[in-house]
This record gives sequence, structure tokens and C-alpha cells, in this order.
Amino acid sequence: MNSIESRLKDLGIDLPDAPKPVASYVPAVRTGNLLVVSGQLAFEDGLLASTGAVPSSTSVEDAISAARRCAINGIAVARSALEGDLDLIRRVVRLGVFVQSDAGFDAQPLVANGASDLMVEVFGEAGRHARAAVGVSALPLDASVEIEFMFEVG
Amino acid sequence: MNSIESRLKDLGIDLPDAPKPVASYVPAVRTGNLLVVSGQLAFEDGLLASTGAVPSSTSVEDAISAARRCAINGIAVARSALEGDLDLIRRVVRLGVFVQSDAGFDAQPLVANGASDLMVEVFGEAGRHARAAVGVSALPLDASVEIEFMFEVG
Amino acid sequence: MNSIESRLKDLGIDLPDAPKPVASYVPAVRTGNLLVVSGQLAFEDGLLASTGAVPSSTSVEDAISAARRCAINGIAVARSALEGDLDLIRRVVRLGVFVQSDAGFDAQPLVANGASDLMVEVFGEAGRHARAAVGVSALPLDASVEIEFMFEVG
Repeated sequence: MNSIESRLKDLGIDLPDAPKPVASYVPAVRTGNLLVVSGQLAFEDGLLASTGAVPSSTSVEDAISAARRCAINGIAVARSALEGDLDLIRRVVRLGVFVQSDAGFDAQPLVANGASDLMVEVFGEAGRHARAAVGVSALPLDASVEIEFMFEVG
Repeated sequence: MNSIESRLKDLGIDLPDAPKPVASYVPAVRTGNLLVVSGQLAFEDGLLASTGAVPSSTSVEDAISAARRCAINGIAVARSALEGDLDLIRRVVRLGVFVQSDAGFDAQPLVANGASDLMVEVFGEAGRHARAAVGVSALPLDASVEIEFMFEVG
Repeated sequence: MNSIESRLKDLGIDLPDAPKPVASYVPAVRTGNLLVVSGQLAFEDGLLASTGAVPSSTSVEDAISAARRCAINGIAVARSALEGDLDLIRRVVRLGVFVQSDAGFDAQPLVANGASDLMVEVFGEAGRHARAAVGVSALPLDASVEIEFMFEVG
């Protein structure tokens, strides 16, 4: 078992199968040493647990969990794009975090930490990344959180 | 005529002249093998057809058309940046899609498909891309859709 | 003194110390010849001058100033990531500009010019960049403007 797979196992994280392409866009594109992963929602076993704006419809705590789940799904997509070898990831470069937010809610960084912390748990120092976190009025399927990813790969 | 130009002709798509730089930012920047194209609005013959939020001010169908137009304009910008040679595009890497959305509207992916499908019509398999699509409360010039692009070029 | 530092001095711009990493994300990540800088807020001397939506809580003029400040902070982060040598920056590639906007406010490009113009003042032709500017309903710490950056570095 390679080292990141082993780390995931230690953390008790079971990566889902990567979603199949359902449209003209695809889950991930590699260009040179960059792997660009499409915006991920917090699907778990086919269900989107957190919907609606934070905090009126989804609590901050649940949104943090949703961000963590988006990150797990992003790693699953990367694994599929890398034909199963997550050890090809040299660095998590960037997370773009969109939080469906009520007017006046300004703790998007706290929500985004659910994903950021997961990246460091899984990839260690290589998991530290640049990030933009913003609040938006609407997201696909009424999701509370959407996150896109850029990885450096070997 | 090169092959992508020929494909555009077959599709009946007439690329506009690329917009001139009007400020300190420019329509596109090449860095290494990446071509980064600024956020495009759905201008057609100098007019912005779709304005306001989806679906209250612009129907989903019109927003899909606007997304397609943003994609055409993005290709026009790329052509200009590549000195007319669209065959230098090896891959469409990423689309960032912003849809001006009413609260509760969650079909941003459907709107974004207007651009994504166009990319595959024009570039074939090389047109399949990663994508983030989100809903925002306001866009420049009250546009209904804004899309930015990243291409891999040779 | 290197040339960009000299230019900053001529412009009367005093770069702040780069913010310290406070979480699992970091201010900037270099990958190949790209330097990706996290979303910056308009902190100045530890204070966030502009908060709330534009134009109801923050005037357009103040938002332009905030965008300029975000750009100064982005350059400060880049300087730190480049171990003090801003002359390693070959090109400003992309700015992602998020403006906390009231419904109906559509002059995000005008606000974003506060950052775009600063880049050209500092880096000259190399400061011309691709850009996406959008309006969002909420930002971290109720900031009026957040801007992320991509630089090409040597």
C-alpha cells in the first residue's frame, strides 16, 4: 500500500469511487505538473447532507463537516485521475472554497478549515495550500459548500 | 484554414474580434503552456443580451445561451492571444462559471453546460475541462453570466 | 535595492510584513514557475478599513482603496514567498477579485481597477494581468473586497 493510502487508512478515511463524468466537463484535467479538479460538493453515499445557506439552514459545524467531505471527494477524484497513485501528489497548491452564506455571515474561513485541515492530515506539510474562501448566494443542488482544487503532481 | 477554424465554420460560429484591453488588465496572459483568459461576458455585436438574476430576470434557457456566448468570446480572446492559431490549443483545462442567481436557484450546472458543451463541439475530446460553477449575487454590468478560462497551449 | 523595491519606494508604498500562516493554509504556494497567493483582505496596520457591502456600507471610492490595499498585501506575501526578491516576478498572471455587493451593484470592474492599476504602477507592462471580477453576498470578516493572485516567477 502506498504511503498516502496508508495515511488515509490510519485516519479512517474511506475514499469513495470518483464520480463519473456526467457532462461535457470532467472531474479533473492534468496539464503539465498541475492537476485541476472540478468543484466538488459534499456528497456521501450519493446524498448531499448539507444544503441551504449557513447558518440559517446549515449550522457552521455541519458546514465544516461538508467542507471536509468536499476535500475527501476531491482527493478521490485526484486518485482516479492519477490511476490510483496518490503518492504522485507533490503538493496541494490551491483550494477555491465557496460557502452558501446568509447576509452577514462572515466565518467562511472557519468553514473552509474543514477542508484545509483534512489536506494537512492526509498530506502533511505537502498539504499546506493557498486558498480563497468566499460567501455566495447560491450553489448547485442547493449545496452549502463547493470546493475546487489544484494539485502539483509528479 | 486550420482545423479548429474549420470546425467553427462547420458549426456556423463566427468568432468576434477580441475585445481591446480597456484597463490595466488584459484579455489573456500566457505563462508557460497555460493561457489564462479574463472573465468574459455574453457580449454579442456590442450588446449584452442577458442581464439580471436567473431565473427572475433571465430565463434558464437564455442563461444557457449567454454561457455559450461567453465561451465563444473566450475562444475569440484565445485566438487573438495565439495570433490567430487556435490549433495551438491542446486542451481546455478549466472554466470558472459565475451565474447571477436568485436565492434558491440551484441549476448553475445546467447554465454552465451552455459553455461546456460548446467547448466540446469546437475542440472535441480536448474540449473536456474541469469546472467550478457557482451562483453569485451581482456581476459586472448586471450580466447574468461571467466565465473565465484556462487553456493548455503548445 | 532591487528594481521593484525601488519602484515601490518611488510610489511611496510601504509593504507590510507578510501575514503569518494562521491555519492549515498558507499565504502562498510556488509550483514550477507559478506563485499562487491566497485571497487577501484589505488589512492595514492590523485593521480592516472597509467592511460591508458596496455601496450601502462602503462607498465605491473606499472599495477601490480597499482593492488597492489587497494588492499591496498580495505583493507583500509574494515578497515573503520569494525571500525578499520581487524582481523574480516576471509577470502578474491573474487576479481573482470578489466584491461584497448589494443587489443591483454592477461596477465590480471599477472596484477591481484599484488593484489592477496598482499592479501596473508597480510592475509596469509585466503588471498587466488576466482578471475575473464578481460580486458576492458575503466575505470573511465582513470584508468589502477579497483578491487572490497568480504570478509567474523566475
